[in-house]
Amino acid sequence: MPSFSAAETTVNPNIIEMEYAVRGPIPARAAEMKKQGRRVILCNIGNPQALGQLPITHYRQILSLVEDPGRLVRERQLRKLEAPGMPVMEEEILDQAQYILDQMETGMGAYTESRGPAFVREAIARFIDRRDGVAPGEGGVPANPEHIFLTNGASEGVKYILEMLISGPQDGIMIPIPQYPLYSAAIKKLGGVQVNYYPDEEADWNLETAMLEEALVRARSGGVQVKAIVVINPGNPTGAVLNERSQREVIEFAAKHGLAILADEVYQENIYDGSFTSFARLIGSDPIPLFSLHSISKGFYGECGHRGGYLEVRNAPRVSNSRHSFIDLLVKQASVSLCSNTVGQVLTYLMVTPPPEGSAVYQQLQTEKKQILAELYDKALTIKHAFSKMEGMRCYGRIGALYLFPRMEQLPAGSSDYDYCLNLLEETGICTVNGQGFGQKSGTHHLRIAFLPPRNMLNEVLPEWIAFHNRYVNQ
Amino acid sequence: MPSFSAAETTVNPNIIEMEYAVRGPIPARAAEMKKQGRRVILCNIGNPQALGQLPITHYRQILSLVEDPGRLVRERQLRKLEAPGMPVMEEEILDQAQYILDQMETGMGAYTESRGPAFVREAIARFIDRRDGVAPGEGGVPANPEHIFLTNGASEGVKYILEMLISGPQDGIMIPIPQYPLYSAAIKKLGGVQVNYYPDEEADWNLETAMLEEALVRARSGGVQVKAIVVINPGNPTGAVLNERSQREVIEFAAKHGLAILADEVYQENIYDGSFTSFARLIGSDPIPLFSLHSISKGFYGECGHRGGYLEVRNAPRVSNSRHSFIDLLVKQASVSLCSNTVGQVLTYLMVTPPPEGSAVYQQLQTEKKQILAELYDKALTIKHAFSKMEGMRCYGRIGALYLFPRMEQLPAGSSDYDYCLNLLEETGICTVNGQGFGQKSGTHHLRIAFLPPRNMLNEVLPEWIAFHNRYVNQ
Repeated sequence: MPSFSAAETTVNPNIIEMEYAVRGPIPARAAEMKKQGRRVILCNIGNPQALGQLPITHYRQILSLVEDPGRLVRERQLRKLEAPGMPVMEEEILDQAQYILDQMETGMGAYTESRGPAFVREAIARFIDRRDGVAPGEGGVPANPEHIFLTNGASEGVKYILEMLISGPQDGIMIPIPQYPLYSAAIKKLGGVQVNYYPDEEADWNLETAMLEEALVRARSGGVQVKAIVVINPGNPTGAVLNERSQREVIEFAAKHGLAILADEVYQENIYDGSFTSFARLIGSDPIPLFSLHSISKGFYGECGHRGGYLEVRNAPRVSNSRHSFIDLLVKQASVSLCSNTVGQVLTYLMVTPPPEGSAVYQQLQTEKKQILAELYDKALTIKHAFSKMEGMRCYGRIGALYLFPRMEQLPAGSSDYDYCLNLLEETGICTVNGQGFGQKSGTHHLRIAFLPPRNMLNEVLPEWIAFHNRYVNQ
Repeated sequence: MPSFSAAETTVNPNIIEMEYAVRGPIPARAAEMKKQGRRVILCNIGNPQALGQLPITHYRQILSLVEDPGRLVRERQLRKLEAPGMPVMEEEILDQAQYILDQMETGMGAYTESRGPAFVREAIARFIDRRDGVAPGEGGVPANPEHIFLTNGASEGVKYILEMLISGPQDGIMIPIPQYPLYSAAIKKLGGVQVNYYPDEEADWNLETAMLEEALVRARSGGVQVKAIVVINPGNPTGAVLNERSQREVIEFAAKHGLAILADEVYQENIYDGSFTSFARLIGSDPIPLFSLHSISKGFYGECGHRGGYLEVRNAPRVSNSRHSFIDLLVKQASVSLCSNTVGQVLTYLMVTPPPEGSAVYQQLQTEKKQILAELYDKALTIKHAFSKMEGMRCYGRIGALYLFPRMEQLPAGSSDYDYCLNLLEETGICTVNGQGFGQKSGTHHLRIAFLPPRNMLNEVLPEWIAFHNRYVNQ
């Protein structure tokens, strides 16, 4: 037996091997540059408020009220005072804050139920039903609040499911390449097998059954027991929105081969020229296990720092090696962390609970939402247009999420996309993540950029990028 | 290869086997009773605000201000207005909120650095140094802000460390019995070995080197590589405060055998008749790896729902199987969850940053703190006194944390502490957790009660408990 010394230890090799490029060496170099006082534009991560996006006004007013209930009383007094020049808070906001406090029962400072407060889970279920057109007499399968779990961001929900499904080195999870590195990192950490499938870039990152079958056959022939397929829609890092045919192919494929679907739908509000179709809607009454994820971090609200999100389970599988149900085991798992943070829970509630149509708060929300989404789309188009001036830069996909993921077809011999992104950072201050950080078809080179910087910054920096690019690829 | 069907799946057996009694069958029964409208007094968990403890006033005022920066401007206007009867906010509170927002740089809605904002980590380091009497010229080793990680409650910090240290079924972690079930659950989930050691109940749950040696020898002879020893001080579930001699024995033992120490010190402010001595202070300049944990959930603030805490690493071990440092690997691990929630971060900052002595806010904090701690101690003594009227009820330990963990020496034959607690719940509505849920020496029976219910509730229910007990043990 190897002796262990406190001064030197082996560390779990799965942690050593896992990679997380979104916060990897390129962003680390950007942080150094920032410390030196150099201009850095952080496009490496979908962190809207870090780049100046303002929070939704009434979300924050309500948070402010529920954290300090004394304020609620005071604001009602203020409304009566009618002091000149003093804006008062909408009655509606005060009422909603009071409603949330009443529903929380024990305020913001107590642990809640492990899966989150019932009123939030019920509001999420109604949101899902509205979104998916589920209504009495109109078909569709209603969401079940007991099968919804509030989490610290969507990442925690992903980990819960992967921890349940991966028992050992034989268990595989299909993930798209490129992928968001949370998936590869979590699978690696759990000692499972990452089974890659390759969406078709030139078909705007859409899917064909053949490519899924191919991946499955390859994995199974290696002795891997594939348990689920991950789909990220809208995509991350690709930013591409899947067409419905792709989604249906995934569903048929999962049904045929007995796989669960893990649908990462955190960018569901980030579709700029169409509407969102959820996997829950398309699955309908098919008995395919579906784990879908949503979050307060993205959309038009961008409340990353507050770490809120939820996991919805449909058609939970029977558990063959326990008398407990899948849901009960998930509840037990959530119990070990006690509960997710209450502020994230309240923001999730607000995200799924729009104010009554026609109210002043509703009007304000609509205005803010439209402006934020319009700006995001406009910035995406601007950056995509700049790509058209860069030699060999090809950007596929119907624009969604917060990202573009262009392919670089003319890198100089011996240069990698990592070299490119590092040089881009050094010369222009633009911090992106190279394609290799997400995985990509071998022989291709990409980068991911979050289209978040303010317009004036983009206007300043894009010409520099174009110049850098055309010089770099021709060196 | 077993074929996998989506409708039925095996689940990670480590999750199936792990137990978490604090949210187990007894609390589940209590929830049912509550739904039926029956009186339930939740003493199963250290959740102070759920039982009516009020939050610290200025903590919440500051949260309210940083969430809604518009309010900051407005409160300054209000101070000028001098409307009759309208209380204004202390300038000091407004300034501190502004300071926090300035330091956060990107507000509350952006992801922060993975390990947490630098200003919070620096404030924590100063807090640790003050607590441990570290000052220039006076000796002691200052805390390093780069080795501090902000987490969603202390639980997340525990998981980070155990995930790093446990690579496979040969790796063992020593934990005290009884223990807080987070430890057994996390070790089980990671597939490591739980190595029990048994503090001496009749010596007020203190420790002797012999009992540690005995556990280590037993584990090593079974081929287990013991990597760390967990100490919970003040104890959970015992509530007992270790004497300094016990702490020193742990340190010597760890040094001798090359173990790291994981010091769960989340109850460090919950000592009612003395002062707290940290493991960091006692270790001084000894090169023993120390992982210590603290949290905003306990103490006199009790902000459980906000999920804040930190992990401090000292003497990080060299990593023998990677060129990366232990700290770098921890940073990578934290990166996968992006960051802990910003509100928990701000509350952690406030916890470690008392207002300037003599200020109005300082006075208010002192008053609230003293009252909360005095009430907790008074309630603990009241419950302990009630135990003296229960036949065969023995309660050891210098009172700390939020718990009492009495031993029941006269249960009727065939009855377990689980039966006792379930009957206690059914008959009186008092929800406790039975000793078996934490582990206990075989043949002994205990329960854990959190001494949190309001005085008037205790006055009502303790006589009922005494009557129940003496009837139950004599049946």
